[in-house]
Amino acid sequence: MTIAPEEDRLNAQIAFAIEIDKLKRIIRRNHLIDGSRRENTAEHSWYVGMLAMVLGEHAPPGTDLQRVVAMLLVHDLVEIDAGDTFIYDPVEVARQADAERAAADRIFGLLPAEQGAWLRELWDEFEARQTPEAQFAKALDRFAPILANHHTEGGTWPLFKVTAAQVREKVRIIEEGSPSLGAYALELVDLSVARGHLSE
Amino acid sequence: MTIAPEEDRLNAQIAFAIEIDKLKRIIRRNHLIDGSRRENTAEHSWYVGMLAMVLGEHAPPGTDLQRVVAMLLVHDLVEIDAGDTFIYDPVEVARQADAERAAADRIFGLLPAEQGAWLRELWDEFEARQTPEAQFAKALDRFAPILANHHTEGGTWPLFKVTAAQVREKVRIIEEGSPSLGAYALELVDLSVARGHLSE
Repeated sequence: MTIAPEEDRLNAQIAFAIEIDKLKRIIRRNHLIDGSRRENTAEHSWYVGMLAMVLGEHAPPGTDLQRVVAMLLVHDLVEIDAGDTFIYDPVEVARQADAERAAADRIFGLLPAEQGAWLRELWDEFEARQTPEAQFAKALDRFAPILANHHTEGGTWPLFKVTAAQVREKVRIIEEGSPSLGAYALELVDLSVARGHLSE
Repeated sequence: MTIAPEEDRLNAQIAFAIEIDKLKRIIRRNHLIDGSRRENTAEHSWYVGMLAMVLGEHAPPGTDLQRVVAMLLVHDLVEIDAGDTFIYDPVEVARQADAERAAADRIFGLLPAEQGAWLRELWDEFEARQTPEAQFAKALDRFAPILANHHTEGGTWPLFKVTAAQVREKVRIIEEGSPSLGAYALELVDLSVARGHLSE
């Protein structure tokens, strides 16, 4: 018996769909804005996709926002294998890169070849941060936890002894993708310092 | 002191961003595919957005898939006020419509007017199910829980005494948006019945 090519494709797509459900079990460091619990990576991915929709005017003119949304939906799929990386831990960040590439090979490899290549391209572009789309996507990915921490009395900052200087360093990535959101994020950092939720 | 119009816009967008974080606290009936816990609406919204990306070829030719993704990201925001509706409870479904419209007024109303109108239009289109985009989006919204229930020994079906006839009725909505996904969903229903996870 031969399997019809279309059936084969659908089976591969369904295998991928079942696999990516696991992203809902990956727990990030930061908390929800109401402080009730830590965030998982699937809901984070939805959230930054929504941010791309409503904060799009803060990207450089001509940025393809639909590509930004697509990039943000897939940007953390590799965490299914590689786990979440805490961006303020340099050792963890370095070790993570290899694990994430292996994860991308396996997870995008579940799909029919040209679809897997398309999602992989979006992920590679996001990671390389060379296009306006990737820079804006990365800016939103950095912006979301600053917004959450600011609204949860510092959130992960005091918990993991993160300093204002370290956060301002990360804000540069926001500025790269969006000067206006970068400026706003710096205001939040200053306010958090003034309120005693983040140490200089 | 006058507030610069741009600052006013950003403040409104941030207020919306903070508000929609609450979608992560809305709990749906169905479980994750590993059966570990019930799903929340934010991660569900991410999941169906991803399904639109990888199952797009099952939509009618010419369907604007980027619009489908955008629609799916916003389709359940009204649940922040109105809560999740269990689609197999007709009384709940009827009462829900008014609550959802009021929620849409309030939540999309947080944004600058033309942005709020744009998201509201996406939501109205989704609810009306008249365009290929809305029909495909709704198909994926119905497909996801069938996939999850099939892979969790029936999941919510035995739990809430849902019958195969009721599920097949919902599969019509999948067929409307995607004949091939509708046919696949019917196969899953039959398989679930054969395995004793869904009663005729």
